Amino acid sequence: MDTPHAAQELVGMIAGLLTTIAFLPQAIKTWRSKSAKDISLTMFICFCGGIVLWVIYGFMLGAFPVILANVVTLCIAATILAFKVRYG
Amino acid sequence: MDTPHAAQELVGMIAGLLTTIAFLPQAIKTWRSKSAKDISLTMFICFCGGIVLWVIYGFMLGAFPVILANVVTLCIAATILAFKVRYG
Repeated sequence: MDTPHAAQELVGMIAGLLTTIAFLPQAIKTWRSKSAKDISLTMFICFCGGIVLWVIYGFMLGAFPVILANVVTLCIAATILAFKVRYG
Repeated sequence: MDTPHAAQELVGMIAGLLTTIAFLPQAIKTWRSKSAKDISLTMFICFCGGIVLWVIYGFMLGAFPVILANVVTLCIAATILAFKVRYG
């Protein structure tokens, strides 16, 4: 692996890690409080749909960080969406 | 522009549009209700940091949809973060 490519992968992996990890405290907070009043349902419907397309885009580009980060993000964001539907 | 590249750009643009637009209803909802109790501060701090790195990754990759989508997402997500800090 040449250096520029390695640097790309590293930045992509950290970016993906941060934007993925970000949804965990929200999921935990909502699960604990059983309250999702201030969370927008439209946001999480749109967001999950978009993330599915990011996964497809990652496959088309052959960009592993894009694929990995978005698959995990989708799992957590879908959980928050389910909490929103359940706890309103 | 060859067809596979055009298809990539299209999927990337729609993906970016959806994950960017997604944050707008959240920003509008929070601005209207002046209530951000159920929103996780940690989520939006992590998320904004990650989005900054996605922009850098987009530049390294030369992937225009990644750059554009994440710059706009950063603006809206930072607004929600500011609302969270203001309205708690």
